[in-house]
Amino acid sequence: MKKIVLIRHGQSVWNLENRFTGWTDVDLSETGYLEAKKAGEILKKHDYNFDIAFTSLLKRAIKTLHIILEDLDHLWIPEHKSWHLNERFYGALQGLNKAETAEKYGADQVYKWRRDPDEEPPQISKDDERYPGNDLRYQLLKPGELPLTENLSDTIARVLPYWNESIVPAISRNEKVIISAHGNSLRALIKYIDNLSNEEVTALEIPTGVPLVYELDDDLQKIRHYYLE
Amino acid sequence: MKKIVLIRHGQSVWNLENRFTGWTDVDLSETGYLEAKKAGEILKKHDYNFDIAFTSLLKRAIKTLHIILEDLDHLWIPEHKSWHLNERFYGALQGLNKAETAEKYGADQVYKWRRDPDEEPPQISKDDERYPGNDLRYQLLKPGELPLTENLSDTIARVLPYWNESIVPAISRNEKVIISAHGNSLRALIKYIDNLSNEEVTALEIPTGVPLVYELDDDLQKIRHYYLE
Repeated sequence: MKKIVLIRHGQSVWNLENRFTGWTDVDLSETGYLEAKKAGEILKKHDYNFDIAFTSLLKRAIKTLHIILEDLDHLWIPEHKSWHLNERFYGALQGLNKAETAEKYGADQVYKWRRDPDEEPPQISKDDERYPGNDLRYQLLKPGELPLTENLSDTIARVLPYWNESIVPAISRNEKVIISAHGNSLRALIKYIDNLSNEEVTALEIPTGVPLVYELDDDLQKIRHYYLE
Repeated sequence: MKKIVLIRHGQSVWNLENRFTGWTDVDLSETGYLEAKKAGEILKKHDYNFDIAFTSLLKRAIKTLHIILEDLDHLWIPEHKSWHLNERFYGALQGLNKAETAEKYGADQVYKWRRDPDEEPPQISKDDERYPGNDLRYQLLKPGELPLTENLSDTIARVLPYWNESIVPAISRNEKVIISAHGNSLRALIKYIDNLSNEEVTALEIPTGVPLVYELDDDLQKIRHYYLE
């Protein structure tokens, strides 16, 4: 039996300000730090440790991981960062206040943008400073990989190749894996691992800073999952 | 012209307590945190940023790196950790107080152990808890790679393959490199890059937390070096 641990980063400053974040590289809030710290303590209490870590290119996930690994005295394990694990790219909504956006477009539309796996937020243009093609860290991405917007299906489409090519081989080598990522990149992953329907993934809400364990069989089919407390 | 930045980790708790540290995984002291923070600020002031980072398996170097990368808003760059960049392995001296050791063995002998490139501290035995073979993080090392003690020549012998096989290729790809490591692993590296004699490396003292820039030509021969302030 193989176990992986998924962790959604602690609260960010923009979670707190109720703004759409996406690929904006927002820091953890004070609460977010404490959530990450608590996640580390929970994992320690349950005697978890890891051989390898995967995270996104966004500091709120990277720092959550570092705080946890420091608590576990495992800062020395290999750590792989990839844009494939980034939050869903929220297009032209990034930076906007969710309540104001709901006033402008209606709460139904905002709910759809947030939760309907097929609904895309408005695209940004390539001369927008929020376009990832204007950010150094994405300079090695191919043009077709740089998003203008993403629905959850788009996010799934770029999370899965990384899962298959980078994370699955580590699990198959019997390495103990931790993935520190984001609400929607984790929903994308779980939709696949757990074989969820669109309706099920729409309802899926992953709490910040709570270690989520997936137990998998040798074919990487789910046996069960649970949160650690 | 290529530039690399070397940084010796900030003061550790055992630097402060005047104990031989070696591969013991001691944390930064409060002063060490501040030194790392200052190193980040200096690099930021001079507009440095990096494409790739290398560090050891010891938290005082890893945390120094993280503090710097956070200051530079570059936590997202790839980070490679290797035992090859660890501090010199101090054998049976690890954990001992330097002043007490000097009383017992004489100041001359301690100076030799610390500085003479050919002088080895006493070996530890394999059943000693300080033996790296008893530490999870070194489980993939081959038996011949696990030290019982090291003189500086031994340290050079395991730093250089990593320099040649992992760091040089990054420099050759024109990536901007930062190496966060230790007094003796950096002396080992500098002895090679700078073609220092034994006498010169014996006299070489690298301050903690001060970014040291090496400018290299296309054949990776040194043009000049300087500390940033």
